[in-house]
Amino acid sequence: MQPVIALLTDFGLADGYVGVMKGVMLGIHSQTRFIDVTHAIEPQNVRQAAFTLLTTYRYFPHGTIFLVVVDPGVGSERRPLVASAGGYLFVAPDNGVLSYVLDEWDEATFIEPTEERFHLPEVSSTFHGRDIFAPLAANLAANVPLHALGFVITDPVRLPAPLLETSGERIIGEVLHIDHFGNVVTSIGTCRWAEGGGIALTPRFNRQPRAVTFDAATAEVQVAGQSLVGVRRTYAEAESGELVAIIGSSGFLEIAVNRGSAASRLGVNAGDRIEVRLQAWAEAPF
Amino acid sequence: MQPVIALLTDFGLADGYVGVMKGVMLGIHSQTRFIDVTHAIEPQNVRQAAFTLLTTYRYFPHGTIFLVVVDPGVGSERRPLVASAGGYLFVAPDNGVLSYVLDEWDEATFIEPTEERFHLPEVSSTFHGRDIFAPLAANLAANVPLHALGFVITDPVRLPAPLLETSGERIIGEVLHIDHFGNVVTSIGTCRWAEGGGIALTPRFNRQPRAVTFDAATAEVQVAGQSLVGVRRTYAEAESGELVAIIGSSGFLEIAVNRGSAASRLGVNAGDRIEVRLQAWAEAPF
Amino acid sequence: MQPVIALLTDFGLADGYVGVMKGVMLGIHSQTRFIDVTHAIEPQNVRQAAFTLLTTYRYFPHGTIFLVVVDPGVGSERRPLVASAGGYLFVAPDNGVLSYVLDEWDEATFIEPTEERFHLPEVSSTFHGRDIFAPLAANLAANVPLHALGFVITDPVRLPAPLLETSGERIIGEVLHIDHFGNVVTSIGTCRWAEGGGIALTPRFNRQPRAVTFDAATAEVQVAGQSLVGVRRTYAEAESGELVAIIGSSGFLEIAVNRGSAASRLGVNAGDRIEVRLQAWAEAPF
Repeated sequence: MQPVIALLTDFGLADGYVGVMKGVMLGIHSQTRFIDVTHAIEPQNVRQAAFTLLTTYRYFPHGTIFLVVVDPGVGSERRPLVASAGGYLFVAPDNGVLSYVLDEWDEATFIEPTEERFHLPEVSSTFHGRDIFAPLAANLAANVPLHALGFVITDPVRLPAPLLETSGERIIGEVLHIDHFGNVVTSIGTCRWAEGGGIALTPRFNRQPRAVTFDAATAEVQVAGQSLVGVRRTYAEAESGELVAIIGSSGFLEIAVNRGSAASRLGVNAGDRIEVRLQAWAEAPF
Repeated sequence: MQPVIALLTDFGLADGYVGVMKGVMLGIHSQTRFIDVTHAIEPQNVRQAAFTLLTTYRYFPHGTIFLVVVDPGVGSERRPLVASAGGYLFVAPDNGVLSYVLDEWDEATFIEPTEERFHLPEVSSTFHGRDIFAPLAANLAANVPLHALGFVITDPVRLPAPLLETSGERIIGEVLHIDHFGNVVTSIGTCRWAEGGGIALTPRFNRQPRAVTFDAATAEVQVAGQSLVGVRRTYAEAESGELVAIIGSSGFLEIAVNRGSAASRLGVNAGDRIEVRLQAWAEAPF
Repeated sequence: MQPVIALLTDFGLADGYVGVMKGVMLGIHSQTRFIDVTHAIEPQNVRQAAFTLLTTYRYFPHGTIFLVVVDPGVGSERRPLVASAGGYLFVAPDNGVLSYVLDEWDEATFIEPTEERFHLPEVSSTFHGRDIFAPLAANLAANVPLHALGFVITDPVRLPAPLLETSGERIIGEVLHIDHFGNVVTSIGTCRWAEGGGIALTPRFNRQPRAVTFDAATAEVQVAGQSLVGVRRTYAEAESGELVAIIGSSGFLEIAVNRGSAASRLGVNAGDRIEVRLQAWAEAPF
């Protein structure tokens, strides 16, 4: 089977930076297949990249190599990182961009890839995506063993977990992402529909807050000065143009407008606070 | 030969939604090739997607599977649809997005793909592209027979045909699309150059209006309060910056500015009316 | 090995024009692989395309076929061009878009591809990318020999070289490109770090100006009314938000803001003048 390299960067598609990385990788292993996850991460926004990777990686086949380059520290002392976890391989700068994914796996291997024969012969100080990370990914695609790339480390950089607190009748979270449709994705997840119209929340980023099951119809979502009562099952339950709370496709609570943009309606941004007030709930460790 | 899946969506490229669909499909059939038609359809604009599909699909090899996801009704009762026509396969929500293409073929097979074993095990209420449509396309790529996916239906949703009337010396149409260059694509087509400087119009969407052949040099195109006399053969016949009428690459009448944007010059939008006044014409059923 | 076609156009990704070209090419040679360099060249900006090609092509494997379509003269008398140079093949309109690359190679072959059996059967006057250039590239991918496509020519169109003058203590150049991060890429290159904190400049576009080696720490860069003293080795040497001069990843002098956009800070555009005043320098033909 052809190896698959999935790319996630903040390079945009205007300059040929992504094409150059693929050219470099084809030169190292011509049979590689490339899938673009996104190249539209906001420049240098490590956290947005970490979240996008978290919500996408499990849909790829095992063995996929993720090449993740959002690298504000390029040229500094920050380490490169190669990781193996959950049946996947990851190549990235060691700045926390892998940490939301790595938090999901108790067993993982981390390598600092110091072996320069797996980099390009000439390494610039401004484009390690081309000169270091892409060559590493292509060498993994060519079946170079993980441990040949460098030495094991145990302390990769971790991002702080997004805000998510559950106490009594309140759940407090934050806006993590605004998507292409203007849907407002929050840190409140993983949410799943339970029996009897309840929603079971198993906190994803953070083991401190308790798991809770609450009544969907009476929960009140407060965001940007607006209050929405009830979490809906589908956009289609709402009128066209209506603002609704919904469980998004990755299991996070979302605020959406049926056939419109919730983000422009509400004027919210990543980092803004969201609160859910519960009327009926039970502690429910899943 | 590797099967080809061509993707056409309104997902944008920012969030990884397209990458996730490809990951899902590789997991089902690893040999699939992907070609992106576009992911920049205006959110929920079924008609724009239908038109883009119409102007592109015939350039792909027979056997290509088109995965078309513009789906304002996701989570509602709208059916999924798999269609076979003209040597191609199509997977889409049954909301009319395939109808401009299907109108071109007298023989077609329509399946409502109800067999859940060809969907993902867990189906969200907000992302059927990932959970239903992509798995269906990948199963077709893996040679699952069309009829195994569900049962035959005969009443797929059809969009109303775009405005196109020909009567006497007048042709009335509408703006269908503004392209990347600002070219204004209209519903007046298919146009072809005929002998003696004439243009033969064989109405594409609608069998009611009569076919007509008219003199290109004297036809007067009226749009957005402007009047252009004559249809040109190439942009290069115009001065730089000049507004011209031309037959576009898909055979529809277009308004263009040589080395500029006609859409910003005219301030027109999809749906705006366009009229052509003919000086010399003949009824000419082709 | 599967042939690789690398695409560089101003078509954008919204309309399906790029997808259509790939569909056409798959129909001619199904085993072709496609890598997108960029489709976001500013409409009709031949020079920007020429520069992007120059900074990317060498990272692709030998044998790569570059399909370059930025074609303001489509439908006019401008010739199509197929070129072989440096182990690569190029298909483009003959408008100078290949000239920065071709300037780098003393030996090159140029063909005017007049053989219509290698075009689509029907050629529009507005989309030669689909009807002429893509078919030519796919036929090359299918191992049609270069000379079968048409006849040899010796006078392909050349763009004037970008501004680059070195005289006494002054280097004068111009802004060539603003990248996705807002980095301001200039014509001053190729620059390389030399011993003792010096920078060796070997003029790239133009053999007239002399090669020079100058002290990096004391060089003063003047652009947009601002003056920067010293050229840094990495973004990380600068404070967050600081404006710096740096050698970019393609060897051209760049103005950047660490974790910000230099272009919006300075308000510069392609074509704007940049000057470097040297304190210590030596003529140094490399």
